[in-house]
Amino acid sequence: MCQLLGMNCAEPTDVTFSFTGFAARGGVTDHHADGWGIAFFEDKACRLFIDHQSSASSPLAEMVKRYPIKSKNTIAHIRKATQGHILLENCHPFMRELWGRHWIFAHNGDLKDFKPCLNGQYQPVGTTDSELAFCALLQGLRREFPGCQPPLDELFAALEKLTREITQFGVFNFLMSNGQALFTHCSTHLYYLVRSWPFSTAHLIDADMSIDFAKYTTPEDRVAVIATSPLTDDEIWTRFEPGDLALFQHGALLRTINVPVPADVAEKAREPLCKVCVESVLRAETIETTADVETELGIE
Amino acid sequence: MCQLLGMNCAEPTDVTFSFTGFAARGGVTDHHADGWGIAFFEDKACRLFIDHQSSASSPLAEMVKRYPIKSKNTIAHIRKATQGHILLENCHPFMRELWGRHWIFAHNGDLKDFKPCLNGQYQPVGTTDSELAFCALLQGLRREFPGCQPPLDELFAALEKLTREITQFGVFNFLMSNGQALFTHCSTHLYYLVRSWPFSTAHLIDADMSIDFAKYTTPEDRVAVIATSPLTDDEIWTRFEPGDLALFQHGALLRTINVPVPADVAEKAREPLCKVCVESVLRAETIETTADVETELGIE
Repeated sequence: MCQLLGMNCAEPTDVTFSFTGFAARGGVTDHHADGWGIAFFEDKACRLFIDHQSSASSPLAEMVKRYPIKSKNTIAHIRKATQGHILLENCHPFMRELWGRHWIFAHNGDLKDFKPCLNGQYQPVGTTDSELAFCALLQGLRREFPGCQPPLDELFAALEKLTREITQFGVFNFLMSNGQALFTHCSTHLYYLVRSWPFSTAHLIDADMSIDFAKYTTPEDRVAVIATSPLTDDEIWTRFEPGDLALFQHGALLRTINVPVPADVAEKAREPLCKVCVESVLRAETIETTADVETELGIE
Repeated sequence: MCQLLGMNCAEPTDVTFSFTGFAARGGVTDHHADGWGIAFFEDKACRLFIDHQSSASSPLAEMVKRYPIKSKNTIAHIRKATQGHILLENCHPFMRELWGRHWIFAHNGDLKDFKPCLNGQYQPVGTTDSELAFCALLQGLRREFPGCQPPLDELFAALEKLTREITQFGVFNFLMSNGQALFTHCSTHLYYLVRSWPFSTAHLIDADMSIDFAKYTTPEDRVAVIATSPLTDDEIWTRFEPGDLALFQHGALLRTINVPVPADVAEKAREPLCKVCVESVLRAETIETTADVETELGIE
């Protein structure tokens, strides 16, 4: 299995702290060493870095950790190959264009016998089930809205419908963004937290590193971090239910809807993720959770 | 105007030497400081780095100069904005998928009143005439071959037809690749050279740097370098004629055909590029050119 990291923010924010802990799971604290990638949206533009080396040893990952690229929507992925060889073209995230915007997609899971009928509009370059699912999602969205991009609530509804179809084929945790919002789907394991004013400190699980966000932030900042398992051991992480499809915008959770997962996937959701994560997950889950951030933000 | 750099090789080769000279033109030896980008194909996969900072000062460009990514097809671009603001989404090269392969495109020129009828299949994300031309090219190729990718000679013929249409709108120097071959089009200024066994030394025009390629190469290596103006002052660069559309594969020039340019573009081709290039161009042109590299390679 792979691991996912997403960040959705009210103001452009760099991901260097979270990515440092996350990247360590690609070969140091965990075994997801079959490639990695990260995509940063900067308004409509997107920078995509992929590498088939492990994120723990890649010079490119080192640069990403040191060069603070600020973004409102970031998606990262470290890969443990299940389907598709260890090749650059199989590294997530994947990028395509739809309605004059770049779209980014990363997947953690395993889809069995998934053979969508693609019309050629979007075709996978690599050999993963994940890129196939991305192509199927974009084709489905384009079929639903052939002209131009609909409002985000209609987009969310269409994504729900498509997720309902694909989730039948197996484990389908994913992060997806067009630069305006971050869509997340939990099939088995996905956690999130929202950091907001007044910010406090955080300490990474996977590296001996702490940060006092209060020093670097303003009241306008708000940051939602979404990850396969908690990245810090002194913050409150909320676990998504298996099947939860969510929409984050401006650093806040705006929508969730549950798309039921098959019984065997629900079973997998009860299994522990991996040894190194068990302790942190337990710790995160025993902290009393606060209410979700209330927001008066409308959907753009 | 912008500047283009392309490299097509028989074996995966890094572009660090040429890119070091090229990147200096983005703010040090020349004024193309409104962004830059570079794309490296590794088989079907493609790494794309773009930045709206100048290539002379960008930390990302510094990494590209130091981290030798080996590729058979590389396309780089430094931008002097003519149409479209200085924004990341307007930085070349641009990337799209067609027939299950990534396609990369970079343009140097200026297309006036170019308003192709796009059917929505490919839409520009930014606001440049260049990305619009790329979308029109891909739409045209897909219309010609709706099912899957044709053999390279048919692809070249289709590209010739499309170039013939777009070239009417102005200056249209471009580099384009799908990872299998490099297509180049000279509208006003484009030079190339082929380095092959036994390799010799080369000295950059834009930086005090020399290299002895013989130390790093084997008889199997062959490298074609294509650039808006010569990058080295001690090698033989061949100037493409205005209108020349060319196909490079395995480090060799395999096909050229001339697509006549409008009279005002032909006039521009006679103007010197820029002050810093004049001397090197004159020097390159006064060296007696050898015959083009003969090759027995067939088109894949």
